[in-house]
This record gives sequence, structure tokens and C-alpha cells, in this order.
Amino acid sequence: MAEIVKVVVDAMGGDNAPVEPVKGAVEAVMEREDILVILAGQSDVIRKELAKYPNCPKDRIQILNASEIIETAEPPVFAVKKKKDSSIVKGLMAVRNKEADAFVSSGSTGAVLVGGQILVGRSKGVERPPLAPLLPTAKGVSLLIDCGANVDARPSHLVQFAKMGSIYMEDILGIKNPRVAIVNNGAEEEKGNALVKETFPLLKACKDINFIGSIEARDIPSGYADVIVCEAFVGNVILKLYEGVGITLIRKIKEGLVSSLRSKIGALLVKPALKDMLKTFDASEHGGAPLLGLKGLVVKTHGNAVAVEIKNAVFQCVQFKQNGINERIAKQLNQDKEEKAEAEV
Amino acid sequence: MAEIVKVVVDAMGGDNAPVEPVKGAVEAVMEREDILVILAGQSDVIRKELAKYPNCPKDRIQILNASEIIETAEPPVFAVKKKKDSSIVKGLMAVRNKEADAFVSSGSTGAVLVGGQILVGRSKGVERPPLAPLLPTAKGVSLLIDCGANVDARPSHLVQFAKMGSIYMEDILGIKNPRVAIVNNGAEEEKGNALVKETFPLLKACKDINFIGSIEARDIPSGYADVIVCEAFVGNVILKLYEGVGITLIRKIKEGLVSSLRSKIGALLVKPALKDMLKTFDASEHGGAPLLGLKGLVVKTHGNAVAVEIKNAVFQCVQFKQNGINERIAKQLNQDKEEKAEAEV
Repeated sequence: MAEIVKVVVDAMGGDNAPVEPVKGAVEAVMEREDILVILAGQSDVIRKELAKYPNCPKDRIQILNASEIIETAEPPVFAVKKKKDSSIVKGLMAVRNKEADAFVSSGSTGAVLVGGQILVGRSKGVERPPLAPLLPTAKGVSLLIDCGANVDARPSHLVQFAKMGSIYMEDILGIKNPRVAIVNNGAEEEKGNALVKETFPLLKACKDINFIGSIEARDIPSGYADVIVCEAFVGNVILKLYEGVGITLIRKIKEGLVSSLRSKIGALLVKPALKDMLKTFDASEHGGAPLLGLKGLVVKTHGNAVAVEIKNAVFQCVQFKQNGINERIAKQLNQDKEEKAEAEV
Repeated sequence: MAEIVKVVVDAMGGDNAPVEPVKGAVEAVMEREDILVILAGQSDVIRKELAKYPNCPKDRIQILNASEIIETAEPPVFAVKKKKDSSIVKGLMAVRNKEADAFVSSGSTGAVLVGGQILVGRSKGVERPPLAPLLPTAKGVSLLIDCGANVDARPSHLVQFAKMGSIYMEDILGIKNPRVAIVNNGAEEEKGNALVKETFPLLKACKDINFIGSIEARDIPSGYADVIVCEAFVGNVILKLYEGVGITLIRKIKEGLVSSLRSKIGALLVKPALKDMLKTFDASEHGGAPLLGLKGLVVKTHGNAVAVEIKNAVFQCVQFKQNGINERIAKQLNQDKEEKAEAEV
């Protein structure tokens, strides 16, 4: 039998806690036998939720009691240092202490990012651990790297992001030789801000990635590249605008569909097909956003994640663990470092 | 009678030239009597197009012969310097020499931006002229400032963008006390990259704008602010991603609508209502993107603009001229400069 993977799920994080995280965790262990889920949070609340699922395999669901909750609005560094008995801090500590393989949370992005770096710690050789969500595209998904909390990156950070992203897309999503592009304000090589201009030749010189050049934001949704490299401020704009334009456009379309009797009848007929189609444009089917380059696995799911996203994030962790992504990333980046050091001697 | 406003329209620029620019110009002069349009480009080509409209008022349509065409792919600075007999250079020179009030082009964005700065010239006091397109939102439109070619802006540039954008939205779109926000990676004041952190308190201290703080990219499409201030690299990402997500999503929806017989029948019923609704999410109804802070008016329309956008851009120029926006901008920015100089004494 395959080795059991232990995943801590933050039962108190996100808009739909504790209902959806607990439901997602239960669904994960019911669907696969190689998973043990540890629900972190207030044990009485979790026990009450678990009571809804009398048939779930109790030997593969544990509770990690944590009395405190970190709210989304709290300053992350302060919250992580202060609330030692929160689900986020205890979950991350379990990963640090090798009591669990991974931590999944829909809670405060800032706290998960800060906690991941402070408590779990960076792998040797990793300069900055990026947060890398998947974006839905016309062809599937692309990895947007970085959307973390640390902005104003250096060129060497972006080069590491490109390498980590390539390993992730190849090993977790099975994309052979993933196409890597850097976000730019034009397709030509001379375009870009100071950071991009400095990074471009470094990426071009990388032998271990399939660098295809610049990507304009217009071409992101079409699936032009598999790994989309950018600095976190720009990544944040891309990620959030993607959601914002989608939400507003779909709302406009819904308004249009109910604006007349004729369109209302039509809406009833198109609804199932439209729903199926929009589902293909939904990245949550693939799980959450991993925080790459740490000594353990941390995955951030959307603040409004429902059970299916949590479940997929747990599955993602299993694959992550089985493929040894963290080890591969650490090995790759250290190898680069050694080569660089040798070249300098 | 109102003073006649003279607008040069680039008849050779954009994907649909010469057909759509000429059509838009003709429609503009037929709809309003206070406009004279000068079509810049190869006169034989223009004359042939104009022959399609025997009833147009010939006394208010002139031709400015220009034998050369600047292609979109050409390096802008080189093209503007080399092709002195192009429609872009000749149109801009007409504005510079006060032979025309404004220039409208769907051609090379780079050439229009570079040419606008070099040939028409900055107004006194303007540090950097921004390109400011209108974005469609759930409530109407917002001005995105800057999307120009000069990236890596300084805080003082962003402050000027905020002021120019406020004047534009108030005077041209009639929005009283327009809400100004700076693009940021979070709503809290301590968020941001180095540029945003440095700019935020400067905007907060501005007495002549209605600064409402940070805007996250997610909130742009909902119409949370009227003037959206950012550095041009980020502006470019926002503008192009807006288009890209919209195109991909609408394509997905169309695929959904024709995926089954049932949905095809429904599609016929919803089509008119959907079309009307999506039209409200189309900024081209408001014209093109002005290049603000110049000594004359320059408006850039989309590369794929059709007649209605050209026509609206021409109308936009009339309003621009009648409200004396350029003079207002120059006055405001110089007043700031004088106040600053006095304070320093």
C-alpha cells in the first residue's frame, strides 16, 4: 500500500469555515485511502461539524486543537507571532516538526505567507518562496508566479520563480517542457521596466527551462504560456483583475439574460451548457496556490473556497509529496548555486 | 455659431484603415456642424474612400497628403524621425503648427506617443504626459492613467497623473469630484511596492483631488474609482488583461451557446438582450485614450477601432477643445509648482 500522506486542513480559515473545510477534508479521505487529514481549529466546533458525516473513516481524520483564530484583517507578522494557539500557527508548526506533510488553509493569505516562511522555513538555496496560483485559460491552466506578499523583487528571484514554476508544472500537472514567459508591456525584447530588462537575458541564458520570451497580459487568458513569471505586485494585479473582470462580465451577462421575457426563456435553455462551459474556466478544480520553496508543503486556497477546492488542494498535496517537489526544487537551486560558485572560482 | 474645431484623423492607421477612419470622419462631420475633419494619408486612397459618401459636406472634409505609413511593428522613435511624410508625423505637425486642434489615430501606439511628446510637445510644468484610456465598468467608465510607453515612473509623476485625470473626468465626462485611487496589492495603507508607498502620502496631501486611497485590481471592474492611478507598466497589464479576459470569456460563452441543440435555440432568444448588455461594457462608445499634458490634443483609438469609435474620438476632441482641458491642466500644474517654490523659499 502507498504511504499515507498527512495533511493539516485549517478548519477555521476562510469565509466558509468550518463547514466547507471540514466537508472538503471528509470528502478527501472518503475518496482516497492514502490520506490522513488533521483538522486544525477549535475541537468542539470541529467535532460538531464532523458529526454530520457518521460514515467517514474516523481513523484517518484527526483533530489538532487550536483555540485562537487569525482574522483576515489582522497584520500578518503580528498575528503569527502573537497567536501561537491559532489554527494557522499550529498547522504550520505540525509541518515544521514533521508531524504532517502539508498544510492547507483558506484563511488570511498574509498570515499563511508569513507563517510559511517563518515557521516552516525556506529550503536551502531558495531566496524568496513564491505564492503560485493557477489561472484558468482557454486551454487549461497556467501557473502565475509570484503573487506573494513580498514585492519589488530582484532579477535573481524571478529566475528562481521560473525554475520552481517549471518543476511544478512538469511534476504536478504533467506538462512536458512547460513554456515559461515573463510578463511584459510588449512582445519585443527591448520592452520592459528596469526589472524585466535585467531579468530577460538571465532567463534566456537558463538551460534548464523552456523560456519563450515576453508575454503581454492580453495573451495570458488564451494559454500562451504555462509558467507566467512576474514580480508579486504585478502578479497580484493580474490575479485579482482576472477575478474582477470575470465576476463583472458574468454579472452583466446574467442581467442581460433576465432583461426580457424572450431572453428569460432563452436563459432556461442555455443555462446547463453555459454552466458546463464556465466550469472549464475555473481553476479551483486544480486545488489551491502552493507556496513553493519551503521545507514543507503549504497550499493557500481561496478565501471563499468550498469543499471541492479544499479536497483538490489535499489531493494536490499528496501528489506534491509523492513527487518530492520540494526536494527537487532544493536540489535544482543548490546545483545552480554550486555551478555559479565554481564558475566564479 | 460655435467655433469650428479642426481634427486631423489618421486615415492610414489601424487594422481597418482606410475604410473605418474615413467612415468615422464622415459620420462625425455629418452629425455635427461645428467640426472640420482633415484626413491624413495617401490622397488617392482617401479620395477613393470618400467617393462612397457623395452627400457628405465637402467643405468640412479636407485631405492632408502623406505618402508614408508607419507600421505597428516599427521602432517608434526611429519611425517618427525617419518617416517625415507619414500620416502620424504630418498629423502631429499640423497640431504643433496650430493648423489643427487635435489628432486622432488608430495607428502605432508607440509612434503616436513618441510623436506626441517630440512633435507636439509637453505643456509647461508637465513632467510626463500620460496615456489615459477609459475602462468599461459595471457603472460606466473609469480613467486608467498611465498606460504610456515610459515605465518606471517617479512619485511626482503619479501625483500629476492623478490631477490630470481628475480634470479630465470632471470636464469631459461631467463627473463631479471624481474619486481618485492608486492601484495597490491590498487595501491597507501600509501595503504597496516602494513607488506606491512613497506616492500614497503625497496623494493624501493633495487638496485639489478627491483621493479615496488604494484600489485592488479586483475592484476596478466594479467602478469603485473614477480615476485609477498607476505606473505605465502596471497600467499596460491592466488594460491588456481587461481585454484578454473579456475576449476569452465571451468566446467560452459563445462556445457554450452552440454546444447543443437546446442551447442553440436558447441562444437565438438571448442574443439581442445579451448584445445590448455587452454594449454597456464597451468603452469605445466614449472615444479613445487621450495623451494628456501636451500643447495640443492627441487621442489614440484602438488598433481595431471601427467608425463609431473614430467618430466618438472626434467628438471627444471637440469637447476637449471647448473646455480648454490642456490650458486647465497646464494652469493647475504650474500653480502647484509655484506654490511649491514659494513654500521652499
